[in-house]
Amino acid sequence: MEPENNNKTSISTLGEFGLIEHLTQNIKHVNQSTKMGVGDDAAVLSYNKKETLVTTDLLLEGVHFNLVYTPLKHLGYKSVVVNLSDIYAMNGQPKQITVSLGISSRFHLEDMDELYEGILLACKNYGIDLVGGDTSSSMTGLTISITALGEAEKDKVVYRNNAKTNDLICVSGDLGAAYLGLQLLERERELFDSSTDVKPQLSGYEYIIGRQLKPEARKDIIKNLKENAIMPTSMIDISDGLSSDIMHITKNSACGCQLYSEKIPLVEESIKMAEEFNIDPLTAALNGGEDYELLFTIDIHDFEKIKTMKNVHVIGHITELENGNKLITPDGNSITLKAQGWKHV
Amino acid sequence: MEPENNNKTSISTLGEFGLIEHLTQNIKHVNQSTKMGVGDDAAVLSYNKKETLVTTDLLLEGVHFNLVYTPLKHLGYKSVVVNLSDIYAMNGQPKQITVSLGISSRFHLEDMDELYEGILLACKNYGIDLVGGDTSSSMTGLTISITALGEAEKDKVVYRNNAKTNDLICVSGDLGAAYLGLQLLERERELFDSSTDVKPQLSGYEYIIGRQLKPEARKDIIKNLKENAIMPTSMIDISDGLSSDIMHITKNSACGCQLYSEKIPLVEESIKMAEEFNIDPLTAALNGGEDYELLFTIDIHDFEKIKTMKNVHVIGHITELENGNKLITPDGNSITLKAQGWKHV
Repeated sequence: MEPENNNKTSISTLGEFGLIEHLTQNIKHVNQSTKMGVGDDAAVLSYNKKETLVTTDLLLEGVHFNLVYTPLKHLGYKSVVVNLSDIYAMNGQPKQITVSLGISSRFHLEDMDELYEGILLACKNYGIDLVGGDTSSSMTGLTISITALGEAEKDKVVYRNNAKTNDLICVSGDLGAAYLGLQLLERERELFDSSTDVKPQLSGYEYIIGRQLKPEARKDIIKNLKENAIMPTSMIDISDGLSSDIMHITKNSACGCQLYSEKIPLVEESIKMAEEFNIDPLTAALNGGEDYELLFTIDIHDFEKIKTMKNVHVIGHITELENGNKLITPDGNSITLKAQGWKHV
Repeated sequence: MEPENNNKTSISTLGEFGLIEHLTQNIKHVNQSTKMGVGDDAAVLSYNKKETLVTTDLLLEGVHFNLVYTPLKHLGYKSVVVNLSDIYAMNGQPKQITVSLGISSRFHLEDMDELYEGILLACKNYGIDLVGGDTSSSMTGLTISITALGEAEKDKVVYRNNAKTNDLICVSGDLGAAYLGLQLLERERELFDSSTDVKPQLSGYEYIIGRQLKPEARKDIIKNLKENAIMPTSMIDISDGLSSDIMHITKNSACGCQLYSEKIPLVEESIKMAEEFNIDPLTAALNGGEDYELLFTIDIHDFEKIKTMKNVHVIGHITELENGNKLITPDGNSITLKAQGWKHV
């Protein structure tokens, strides 16, 4: 999947403006709030009577993705999804994105088409308008910077700072799979690097690989919460790992938490993969990250409502600040949660 | 100005969240439309009854800046200003920015403080709130991605597609200086690279160096246009060079243009520097770019009003599409303007 030079079109034949025109020519707007998109100094949006939400993510080759095992289309898709996930985590609806690309001479027009195919597929699936960006040559591989804008009803924005003692802590989907998928892809890449005769052994692990390469944002959970008349007291999406992300909530809300290890959702494939790697699947769930599941707290009176919701698990509750951030194991041990450190590559 | 390791603090001692907290701890919001800034999944903005404008720029080390002669504070300042310039070019007022940084291990906490000092100074000077971003380690130097949001009255947004035949073409300030400043800095860097005994010879060229390293956005021109009751028919900021940028207007407005070479504003220092480099100063003005001046068209009936405006020059007029994009020299020759190509580094 590494870009090659066979019969491909040099980007310099189009020039920067030609490239932008080429990549954005089929964009049609679907959101009322999009008045003017690509093609001027700035996009023009109309947000009336609602809050505007804005979030941004920077993805760097070699840090956030490895093109040896990441198809460019998937990369484009994921780059959009990780931003949308942040808007949903505010209880908002994403509406527009801007896309900035730094492109080294290793890449050709067809590579950018593939990347954009993924970007536009995510836009289509989530009803997003691509309204602007910046395109530049790069000396150092591929850089993708995406900003997403969205909207929310004024009194429906869910922050991180409103969790209170006895609130239930809930998480959607399952955790740890994206991290374990990455470990598998990395292992196969290393084997492949050491001998070109080796074929990647990925069969049976399609789910965890898919979680790494092509995650989805939990638009469905936001919809279901609304339909079930549940308003979370706080919410965040899990990008850094359950441990770091619950601590964002407890820190901002000046409280503590108690999680129960046996309640943390793990799928069979994750457990099997973790065993192969000889790591605790719980560690993958706590520190792996990139799950893009929603982690939220609800008032304890909403317990009956949440019980009936699909794909949502109650994994603990909010405590007083003094309690700290704890994980309780089945044998009753209490472990203090830790946040991730700065990882320099 | 290249970051060095003497008594500096490793970013890993703080971690990602510590770094963000450190860099953003003194941020105070000044705009009513900023409801919630850094510290949640997304910023929350309230734009009522106005259009929201959004623009983004990606700056990559080795492509857009060279840290050998660019102080990090200036780089931070410029990174913000180039985005604000795009909002002004829509006749809008910038209000918020998000800042994403990719930071290689070559950089330390003090370097990021210096960069942020420039970012926050630009915010202060232009009345902007920094409301979010993303911070990540990078394998490849420094990456800066900034998105600016702003607002404009619904009927006051100025696009690129509304210029009409006989409209006057106006430009603020002077052109070519930022490009010539860059040539000078590059020349001195090369001399310095070949012999460490050489001291940079920059004296007498403070203006053009300042134009390259610390440009300003023309907030004042937007204010003056309003005060003089002039509503441009089209507008763009000059980032790629007069030639490319006027052609964005004429292409979008389906018209042609006639520029007069002797009307194009050049300062003495630019002319002197161009002579030293043995290049036509006009070429620097047409193709240099990074001027961040405003290029706009006005109805011919506004000529009396524009004449009295400081720092604005009428440099030509809009023609029928068939005329093409022409530059008329003092001896009456007509030269066809050309856009910039894709520059791969």
